Amino acid sequence: METIKIHPIGIVHSPYKNTKDIPIQGIFKAGVEAHIELNKKYEKGLKDLDGFSHAILLYYFHESKTEDIEGTPYLEKDRHGIFSIRSPHRPNHIGISIVKIKSIQANKLYFTEVDILDKTPVIDIKPYIKYFDNREGLRHGWIEKHFSPNKPDR
Amino acid sequence: METIKIHPIGIVHSPYKNTKDIPIQGIFKAGVEAHIELNKKYEKGLKDLDGFSHAILLYYFHESKTEDIEGTPYLEKDRHGIFSIRSPHRPNHIGISIVKIKSIQANKLYFTEVDILDKTPVIDIKPYIKYFDNREGLRHGWIEKHFSPNKPDR
Repeated sequence: METIKIHPIGIVHSPYKNTKDIPIQGIFKAGVEAHIELNKKYEKGLKDLDGFSHAILLYYFHESKTEDIEGTPYLEKDRHGIFSIRSPHRPNHIGISIVKIKSIQANKLYFTEVDILDKTPVIDIKPYIKYFDNREGLRHGWIEKHFSPNKPDR
Repeated sequence: METIKIHPIGIVHSPYKNTKDIPIQGIFKAGVEAHIELNKKYEKGLKDLDGFSHAILLYYFHESKTEDIEGTPYLEKDRHGIFSIRSPHRPNHIGISIVKIKSIQANKLYFTEVDILDKTPVIDIKPYIKYFDNREGLRHGWIEKHFSPNKPDR
């Protein structure tokens, strides 16, 4: 299988018009609100999603033109393998965000915890389920030092 | 943007040769091991991923031929919108799994917590980062009754 063809199922309307304005993750600027405008034909696919507090969004990093094998994350200058960072400049340019569902109105899904650029094509929406998606006892390699409360410089 | 072309970056070698053998989520049969054989050209992309305990895998549900708008999950007979269940028969057929990294050897990533079919094309690997990917205070709609310790029939 050499090429897989996928298609946008909708588009994100976000206050972030420029990549430089976006927080590293939406949870760090949690009050900001955005919405997905789903193609009308998928509207019924949202049924029952409003029972969930959070969703996993998959989307296409439409502004990235490069596919790096190694890269530098936002948080530091060190280079890492592209699969150990969350850079958009990655093979297939697919992004993932966990967002907090605010409401669903017809084909529109309103959410907070936004880190997605305006006009981003959406390719999937899944319910976030802690029994599947949460883990404990984690190790975080290079990124741990930027977040751990035990980090020496905090 | 009407069509997005993506490509497999590697393939999963899994003991699950048939969808009916796969647990609902890999975490429920945690000892099973699989590996990704990454295309050689992406090998350097794995650098530093071994510092992380878990990875997010994105892959293509290559055996699904249908794109449902509503569907029935494994856990019950009720129908739900496709975006409120994790069925493979979804627009774009993209799956996500959180897996536990066991080791990385050259272009091979060995992991447990497997719920992926043998020969599945992989389209992305990301580090799982609790500061981005874990949430608390969650609501789970229709699926909660199947997991909650407070459910009346447990």
